[in-house]
Amino acid sequence: MSRYDPSETSYLCFARARREFQDGRSDPRSFLEHCIERIEAREPEVRAFASLDIAAARRAADASALRYAAGRPLSLVDGLPVGIKDLFETEDLPTEMNSAYFKGWQANRDAAHVFALRRGGALIVGKTVTTELGMAAPGPTRNPWDLRRTPGGSSSGAAAAVAAGMLPVASGSQVRGSIVRPASLCGVIGNKPTFGALHPGGGFGGTPSAGHVGMLAGSLVDCWQVTHYIANTVGGAPGHPGLYGGPTLPPPRRPRRLARQYTIGWDKTDEASQVAFDAFLDRLRAAGVEIVEPRGDADFASYEKLTCDANQVLFDIMAWEGRWPLLYVGERRPQDHGPNVLGPLERTRRMTLDEYRVALGRREQLRAAHRALAGRVDGFITLAHIGPAQFGLPPVGTPWYNDASSVVGAPTYNLPLLAIQDVPLGVQLMGFEHGDEDLTAVARWMLDALGAAAAVGEV
Amino acid sequence: MSRYDPSETSYLCFARARREFQDGRSDPRSFLEHCIERIEAREPEVRAFASLDIAAARRAADASALRYAAGRPLSLVDGLPVGIKDLFETEDLPTEMNSAYFKGWQANRDAAHVFALRRGGALIVGKTVTTELGMAAPGPTRNPWDLRRTPGGSSSGAAAAVAAGMLPVASGSQVRGSIVRPASLCGVIGNKPTFGALHPGGGFGGTPSAGHVGMLAGSLVDCWQVTHYIANTVGGAPGHPGLYGGPTLPPPRRPRRLARQYTIGWDKTDEASQVAFDAFLDRLRAAGVEIVEPRGDADFASYEKLTCDANQVLFDIMAWEGRWPLLYVGERRPQDHGPNVLGPLERTRRMTLDEYRVALGRREQLRAAHRALAGRVDGFITLAHIGPAQFGLPPVGTPWYNDASSVVGAPTYNLPLLAIQDVPLGVQLMGFEHGDEDLTAVARWMLDALGAAAAVGEV
Repeated sequence: MSRYDPSETSYLCFARARREFQDGRSDPRSFLEHCIERIEAREPEVRAFASLDIAAARRAADASALRYAAGRPLSLVDGLPVGIKDLFETEDLPTEMNSAYFKGWQANRDAAHVFALRRGGALIVGKTVTTELGMAAPGPTRNPWDLRRTPGGSSSGAAAAVAAGMLPVASGSQVRGSIVRPASLCGVIGNKPTFGALHPGGGFGGTPSAGHVGMLAGSLVDCWQVTHYIANTVGGAPGHPGLYGGPTLPPPRRPRRLARQYTIGWDKTDEASQVAFDAFLDRLRAAGVEIVEPRGDADFASYEKLTCDANQVLFDIMAWEGRWPLLYVGERRPQDHGPNVLGPLERTRRMTLDEYRVALGRREQLRAAHRALAGRVDGFITLAHIGPAQFGLPPVGTPWYNDASSVVGAPTYNLPLLAIQDVPLGVQLMGFEHGDEDLTAVARWMLDALGAAAAVGEV
Repeated sequence: MSRYDPSETSYLCFARARREFQDGRSDPRSFLEHCIERIEAREPEVRAFASLDIAAARRAADASALRYAAGRPLSLVDGLPVGIKDLFETEDLPTEMNSAYFKGWQANRDAAHVFALRRGGALIVGKTVTTELGMAAPGPTRNPWDLRRTPGGSSSGAAAAVAAGMLPVASGSQVRGSIVRPASLCGVIGNKPTFGALHPGGGFGGTPSAGHVGMLAGSLVDCWQVTHYIANTVGGAPGHPGLYGGPTLPPPRRPRRLARQYTIGWDKTDEASQVAFDAFLDRLRAAGVEIVEPRGDADFASYEKLTCDANQVLFDIMAWEGRWPLLYVGERRPQDHGPNVLGPLERTRRMTLDEYRVALGRREQLRAAHRALAGRVDGFITLAHIGPAQFGLPPVGTPWYNDASSVVGAPTYNLPLLAIQDVPLGVQLMGFEHGDEDLTAVARWMLDALGAAAAVGEV
């Protein structure tokens, strides 16, 4: 375990490797073998994977290598070694969702984003550990930066696999904070795109109305390019216009104005993390960015007040949407589920359609208030978590900073920019609906300007 | 095969049976046995079922009978013998979707509406035949009113099972005309609720943005009560407010004004059906309903013109949403699919996200135009199909009248009110988004007033 320093940390970057595939300096099999070495070295202690199929990945890598040698790669993701969050179906590897209910379950298909990746030549290396059914009970994964600490959840294995240098990219999903939080605690790029920008098909629960699919990656360039590729191959959620933006990482753009948010997270944040975030804001100001404080602006103050409701709104929405299939699997074999599943199910059982409608109305109010601020600032900024990863596996972290960005469906990044107690703590950058490309340009500038240029990757 | 006459036709009515369960004159097992007799008599020639589990239905009926005897039925659907469209997953019976790809496939779960029905004590009698993957290639089902004719599709078996008196209710689904069309050709009640009013989870393709779940039934009362029960048990599509209205069939309401639509269907309609529909409109007028003709009103004329685009808009939306899982299963085992699947897939393969966005924009324009007419009329009225069921199994009918109501997501009924060549032809009644209960009140009045009172059922 080494000390984490965002300015000295660099992870695998597939965009760089791909350039080497194209000019013959390397090939997908060599890159995969490097990943496998890292997996062999670190997986026994990190436990990022629910299952692995190294042999299949090697076969796929060899096929990809032939395509590059012939100058005919299938896509931008051809040869990409990738992990799939084990909440999503795969035609080959089991889909177990860290749940006794799904132990050994074999789906008959690839989830939408898995199909897109495989079709473009990506190598499905394994399924990454999630929490039980994506809820609060952790899997065995540990934080690669300090094995005594949680990696966060529910995309625990995805964040850990990238942070341990085992993979350049892994898929995740988020209802409240399940991408941004583990990315923050493991110090990697995490992106929750605009709600509906990536097709959620083939995940547990179908398409919850607050469920986002997104990528965790060692570099911003990989994160953007893979996200763009998936959106243009299988689209976004049905009925949604999908991800907007071009295929290549947009150039860096310094934001003129960012709004600071507190949410209910700030008061729960430890002092060292508060100090670090305040210092970070000073660096932003020094770089010429105006920081809008809610107390100085009535509109932002009013929005800030509304967001304090975000976690309750999301909780209510999730409770009703748990009527299927969560209540179904819960009632079918109650003995298969732990208290972190059965507890919330009690609320689901009591919930009514009318209560759900009230929660939808409150969400719409939050979204309208958020949209009304577009043009006033380039984005919002908070910590991504109330502090660095806690010791012990449970809890998997809290969503107090993440609910506010999840509930409005706005694109959000975790940017690995801070270290507390020598482990990572990320900054959460949130934009506006469909402004994914703009937000990515700001994220790129921020990584470049604030000392984590390696996290941009080789563009 | 008897001559079809809507005024003399009556099918099974579960609401009536349930009253007999409650006062001890009958019980769920006896009612089921009556269904089984009908299945034994007619299924060999009608072929409505892809699979049956009579033994399981009998066990469930006996358990239900005990609950009624104890005065504690689980719900309004306790003891209801029901068929499930074989596009939806069931934990017990195979889910084969009339596709070689899914031959013998066993889902590990109940689709959302199946879970709701089973949880409330309904008896899952069997899976009803659909077209290949819900598209254009027919299954073996024949029209119970004339075995030489198509039952329509894709909810072919559902419509035929109800029309043959084998079941009081069967589930269906519709993107273009897959509920309304077979209901029309088989002479039963068919309801496509407001888009999102019933949870679509567990169907092939996940949740296409034009996919509706709805019921086909022998009586309006069963159709409404079962729909209401499902909506209040598992909700609507995630993010949607679900079905509005109370649990009991609303009282009949004579509409003041109905708008006549032509769509691109009218010019393709045979003369006898045109004459019958014109005579039907005269009966409506005689009963005191004002019929608004589009040529007499600029707003309706403009909307009429827009709806001529409906089929192309839906076709484009379906093409892109076919990227997953349709393209996935198509590419994985092409040999398993017929030309009615592989043909449309070619367009899916060429389609781009940008083209999809254009189609979404055109749909939004149609929806806005439709919404703008709310308050001007109580609903819209057309034929439900361009004529009675054709001879032969393919084709399964056309969606020319149904696209216009599907694309705007408005609640729509097929009402079995006409006979052509001694076989059924339905009238399509469309309302406004979330106005399902109002529309049902109008449907009830129309059945009562225009000579098909038996189709209301015993309220």
